[in-house]
Amino acid sequence: MDILHRVGIKSPPGEVYKALSTREGLAAWWNNNTQGDGKVGGVLQFRSDAGGLDMKVLELHPSERVLWQVVDGPAEWMDTKISWDLRQDGEYCIVLFKHQGWKEPVEFMHHCSTKWAIFMMSLKSFLENGKGAPAPNDIKIDNWD
Amino acid sequence: MDILHRVGIKSPPGEVYKALSTREGLAAWWNNNTQGDGKVGGVLQFRSDAGGLDMKVLELHPSERVLWQVVDGPAEWMDTKISWDLRQDGEYCIVLFKHQGWKEPVEFMHHCSTKWAIFMMSLKSFLENGKGAPAPNDIKIDNWD
Repeated sequence: MDILHRVGIKSPPGEVYKALSTREGLAAWWNNNTQGDGKVGGVLQFRSDAGGLDMKVLELHPSERVLWQVVDGPAEWMDTKISWDLRQDGEYCIVLFKHQGWKEPVEFMHHCSTKWAIFMMSLKSFLENGKGAPAPNDIKIDNWD
Repeated sequence: MDILHRVGIKSPPGEVYKALSTREGLAAWWNNNTQGDGKVGGVLQFRSDAGGLDMKVLELHPSERVLWQVVDGPAEWMDTKISWDLRQDGEYCIVLFKHQGWKEPVEFMHHCSTKWAIFMMSLKSFLENGKGAPAPNDIKIDNWD
């Protein structure tokens, strides 16, 4: 079972790729406490009061694709994969997102689906307006946030 | 294949239910051109420049659940079902959303998943702050919007 999302960002694919593949980029729209190694085979570490999340970088194709695998974090996320596919379409960079490999459609999957959409809009805002809303200043959606 | 979402709204389930089961409610957060019959067996009609969407109301359980079936609209939506399950949890009404029965994980499904999240946040904003962002004044996410 997969979580899917799509946004169009008025920014070159190379810029979107940078926001997905560097610690500085990820800190600007997802989690301002981003550490670790963003190279292929490295592990990115995202930390918050609620806990941590470690992502192994499996693929990096500049301006085209990023693939991570969850190696530590919430039980439901373990071994799931998260992909970002980019392509230019007119003035937009189209971003296709997939968080794949959920075992069950649990309530937490519902929560994460909505939350990913919020973070995609944060990514869009960061690239278009220079201002994202990364954790801990992210938009709250429910009582698990 | 299903689209899943979850939000928590600081409002009684009865109020959330009204926003999901009346034309006035639906017009305040989803589409300001909402017509038709919202009773069980009736058909709600949502109209926009981009086209129309007709939903048959299959179930109405006050403060608990709403179920629709798409009877006219985009080809990929035909015969899919959309459910809203509500429950109180402390000061929140937890809303579990499911758009079920997609045949393929097409790019349009990615788009609709993100867009539903945006509309769930519009529903939340309408109930918490009195101000939703229904179409045509909805937040735009990509080049299909």
